[in-house]
Amino acid sequence: MILDSIKEISDLRKLAINEISELADELRKEIIEVISINGGHLASSLGVVELTLALHYVFNTPKDKIIWDVGHQCYAHKILTGRRSEFETIRRFGGLSGFPRMSESEYDVYNSGHSSTSLSLALGEAVARDINNEKYKVVGVVGDGSLTGGMAFEALNQIGHLKKDVIIVLNDNEHFISENVGALSEYLMRLITGSLYNRLRKRSYDIIKKLPKFGNSLYDFLFKMEEGVKGIIMPGVFFEELDIRYFGPVDGHNLKALINILNRLNQINSGPRILHVITRKGKGYKPAEKDPDIFHGIGPFDKKTGLPANNNLTTYSEIVGKTLARISKFDKKVIAITAAMKLGTGLNHFSEKAPERFFDVGIAEQHAITFACALAAKGLKPFVSIYSTFLQRAVDQIIHDVGIMNLPVRILIDRAGIVGEDGETHHGLFDVCIIKNIPNFIFLAPSNCSELRDMLYFAQRYDKGPIAIRYPRGGEILNEFNYNEFNRYEPGKSKRITHGTDIAIFSLGDMMKIAVDLHKHLEKEGVMSSVIDLLSIKPLDLNSIQSVIKNTSCFITMENGYISGGVGESILSEIDADLKDKFLFNVGFPDEFVTHGTRGDLFMKYGLDAESLCKKIIEKMKWINPDGKGEKIRRLSVRKRA
Amino acid sequence: MILDSIKEISDLRKLAINEISELADELRKEIIEVISINGGHLASSLGVVELTLALHYVFNTPKDKIIWDVGHQCYAHKILTGRRSEFETIRRFGGLSGFPRMSESEYDVYNSGHSSTSLSLALGEAVARDINNEKYKVVGVVGDGSLTGGMAFEALNQIGHLKKDVIIVLNDNEHFISENVGALSEYLMRLITGSLYNRLRKRSYDIIKKLPKFGNSLYDFLFKMEEGVKGIIMPGVFFEELDIRYFGPVDGHNLKALINILNRLNQINSGPRILHVITRKGKGYKPAEKDPDIFHGIGPFDKKTGLPANNNLTTYSEIVGKTLARISKFDKKVIAITAAMKLGTGLNHFSEKAPERFFDVGIAEQHAITFACALAAKGLKPFVSIYSTFLQRAVDQIIHDVGIMNLPVRILIDRAGIVGEDGETHHGLFDVCIIKNIPNFIFLAPSNCSELRDMLYFAQRYDKGPIAIRYPRGGEILNEFNYNEFNRYEPGKSKRITHGTDIAIFSLGDMMKIAVDLHKHLEKEGVMSSVIDLLSIKPLDLNSIQSVIKNTSCFITMENGYISGGVGESILSEIDADLKDKFLFNVGFPDEFVTHGTRGDLFMKYGLDAESLCKKIIEKMKWINPDGKGEKIRRLSVRKRA
Repeated sequence: MILDSIKEISDLRKLAINEISELADELRKEIIEVISINGGHLASSLGVVELTLALHYVFNTPKDKIIWDVGHQCYAHKILTGRRSEFETIRRFGGLSGFPRMSESEYDVYNSGHSSTSLSLALGEAVARDINNEKYKVVGVVGDGSLTGGMAFEALNQIGHLKKDVIIVLNDNEHFISENVGALSEYLMRLITGSLYNRLRKRSYDIIKKLPKFGNSLYDFLFKMEEGVKGIIMPGVFFEELDIRYFGPVDGHNLKALINILNRLNQINSGPRILHVITRKGKGYKPAEKDPDIFHGIGPFDKKTGLPANNNLTTYSEIVGKTLARISKFDKKVIAITAAMKLGTGLNHFSEKAPERFFDVGIAEQHAITFACALAAKGLKPFVSIYSTFLQRAVDQIIHDVGIMNLPVRILIDRAGIVGEDGETHHGLFDVCIIKNIPNFIFLAPSNCSELRDMLYFAQRYDKGPIAIRYPRGGEILNEFNYNEFNRYEPGKSKRITHGTDIAIFSLGDMMKIAVDLHKHLEKEGVMSSVIDLLSIKPLDLNSIQSVIKNTSCFITMENGYISGGVGESILSEIDADLKDKFLFNVGFPDEFVTHGTRGDLFMKYGLDAESLCKKIIEKMKWINPDGKGEKIRRLSVRKRA
Repeated sequence: MILDSIKEISDLRKLAINEISELADELRKEIIEVISINGGHLASSLGVVELTLALHYVFNTPKDKIIWDVGHQCYAHKILTGRRSEFETIRRFGGLSGFPRMSESEYDVYNSGHSSTSLSLALGEAVARDINNEKYKVVGVVGDGSLTGGMAFEALNQIGHLKKDVIIVLNDNEHFISENVGALSEYLMRLITGSLYNRLRKRSYDIIKKLPKFGNSLYDFLFKMEEGVKGIIMPGVFFEELDIRYFGPVDGHNLKALINILNRLNQINSGPRILHVITRKGKGYKPAEKDPDIFHGIGPFDKKTGLPANNNLTTYSEIVGKTLARISKFDKKVIAITAAMKLGTGLNHFSEKAPERFFDVGIAEQHAITFACALAAKGLKPFVSIYSTFLQRAVDQIIHDVGIMNLPVRILIDRAGIVGEDGETHHGLFDVCIIKNIPNFIFLAPSNCSELRDMLYFAQRYDKGPIAIRYPRGGEILNEFNYNEFNRYEPGKSKRITHGTDIAIFSLGDMMKIAVDLHKHLEKEGVMSSVIDLLSIKPLDLNSIQSVIKNTSCFITMENGYISGGVGESILSEIDADLKDKFLFNVGFPDEFVTHGTRGDLFMKYGLDAESLCKKIIEKMKWINPDGKGEKIRRLSVRKRA
């Protein structure tokens, strides 16, 4: 294998083109092998194998800097840059991250995970290089999807302005098969197909028709000249107008062409330039080429058939998509909005039933929220589904537009809490501490699929202000599920599950399963607990909460989020002063970023499993005997918080 | 006066052009009159007087919708739409808002205050209109500055894609005098000056020179044809490529031209179109035309001279700008970054001393933060100064880029807390509840100018991770101030000011003045208090805090922010369980959006002044006599939180 000969990246630069081509095949094999077992972002990584090779071949990495946007396409890059032997650990607890990580390698220039950051980083890198009087090349690789994120445009605007020596590689992987989202995408498509000429020619006629004053034949002639010439010679005029020189398009799977044009770009030593590279998601693995959306982020699958290992789960996202689809039948005002996550959010089920009321805005969370505001203001019922981690992009819009105007935008916070293998950039641990402090919001967290459905029906009925519902990655094994019938949910109501008087366990959302387990563990130790399903972060069911605390000896709170700023802090803050000393501790994540691993791995790591929690509670409790009768009971003395 | 004849907006539509022109003068007079007394956003409002008149003249408001971006330019709009008699109350407590407010008038289609939201709202409005089968026009007015905000581009992308009937008015008011920020701004300038032709012609030669293969004379000829024609006929190609038809540029102070072209745009009934209007900030008032930046947002000023009423304050922003300027002399690694707020953040003082290390990225908070990440990663020392309210735009970048990579980016949170007259969209009440929960951050809040200076020197020295410093609008009356000498500040240290044992008052940042006042009020009532200047939100000085609480009977916390998610909740959460029942209450803002008014008005409204607080504390305290000796003392029984 040629791959065996790549001990360091300079070995790559000794190869002939045909050898590099063979290396591409070897890399694909290793990637497919490992990801079929570990799961991961297969389609995007397979799409950039040649691009990765060409970049490391042409540029003098690690001195030259390659900055990957999002970073989920970095698998070939990781294998080539000294991490081949660990590659089988990728996305596993304690193993390699699925994204670039500075801590892993000097070839990973920055950490990433979210979209559209690479251009800001590339510009910063170039500015720092020049201030520090150093000499090296900076290459920012950005997908066409990432370009729809406003942040990328903010960076382009300054890149064109500062005119630093920066190379942008536009990895355009949407235009083989997928639906296109947005005018920019259509523009890129025109660049690729060369249809600019025809379109503009038609446009010129249209304009002339509508401007009768100028409709003479001279202008007609000039127009035709102009458009024709532009279509052939200056296709990247959109970028050129921002003072970024455009090159391409080039076939991203043609190593020779790629290397040639990258060499040319490398030799230019001034000014920003963009290379438009066309790649195919899933390239080289038929099932992924056919269904790149499914192979975008996938769990373990059968390498031969491409079929995912069936886990029988009905996901929360699926509940959302299917319930909203049912609701859309009888309520024509319901709208669904996604920011480039139609499949992931389950909204594909909605878009099939009500395509005219479904909107994919691209990777544009800010716009998604404010766009929804206008819909809500006009009496429609927008449901915007965004992963918790990506909702961080739209905090201002949630405050400034949804919150202040008090509009009934329904924000569905998918992947709230620990997401597992994608790790620290993707966990949804911040939504509680942000949303719960925004006035006017109702903020709910179901603990199971039925409650989620009931809350969606509530959100459909309720139109007095904004609602957010947070629910985790994953789902439940359901034999059947009734999407049509529901129980009326009233926000601000918690649900008491058990009635012990030694300790109250206030559980938020998906912590419920652990809470119920914990109840059983405690019972075995002779400690009787009251488990309460909080359901509503805001408003808090303060009366019920206080009445439970009054009748138990102590309490804990549990949430799939950070302790700091969590619902536990709200409870502690809002209950009467004389109840506060019954607080034992809050179950949640400490003040650090949480690595990747399965949900189970990570809960164990932080001692959030029922067994560990039971032990911790028993330790914290000092059993005393207040009435001197030798009975083991209720009154606990809690002296110190751990 | 013609203005007297405008009882409703339809009266405007009966006027002749020369009468409207006279009306423009009258409006300017009324605006200058009132704003010279109340303060406000004068320059932008004066710039759009003709545009406002032309829009209301051509479009059938309120049926047709005019959506103002930011909204600070809405003064003429407010006077014309039934609010003339209240106009003198603008920006005053209980009076008109300085921004569009749906609650004030049906002509205010949405609330706004932050930049770059109007295009998302306009598209949502148009989509809702079509779903609801209604017929009216939607006009989104957006400034060229606002277009640099990524969110605006996210909206443009979908506007071009959906091809709805939407009119965008690009109010280009940067190109009379100001510095331009960004490549987009340079592009707009080229459109205005028609220099596209010359530039592209030069460019075509450059390209030919660098592509020897194609350097033949035929191509040379074609290039010249192409560029020339494009420069004359198709100037708005940047927008055209996004499928948004470009019209203009047109002089925004020529009523006749404006009305003509708006009429034409109104008659087109399909597809998105953008009209490029050139206006002059401060138009019609010489001092504002000369210094539009100063008259962007200004306090009361002398109408005749244009001189601001001198308030003798040295602002916190000025301390920042001047201190960083001093630091930049001995530390060449210090960089200052602003997002279009050079004057407001005080960084003008820095940019004068170290222009090569000063960056204005435009209204692009997301990019500002991530750009700074790369600088920090390369050993430079970026200080990014952003108003608290606008920092909400960059929450994800602060978490995903600064936080996770643990980079020493120095985030200066200006205008933290109540900002006063700009009101609910501009108060900086959320930064604490967001930043304090992000791992790796040090988060500080000085209570006076010297502490702010000391913290800046600390931030210059410290390079182990991110630092945020929050400080309020306003400043102190300082006779002299030493920018060069400083006291070494150590984060995580609070400062004890007084030593009473009845109650501890933990004060954050600028609440200190009220805390000291409160101490005096309490003293008169025989209650001795310990006032503690917290200084550090994170890490909390937990040992000192606990030791103070142990030795006092009860405690309160004070902060200029929301109670929910504030530093008070952190303290309550982190202290030992047996100290928690000493908590009396948290001083801060309740769970609602806070209106406009002076800081004093708003603090009074919520009972946050020393007198109200003293009364509240006395009421909450139930004096008991634990040792039966009849002495009035320390041990308080706190039973219920209000």
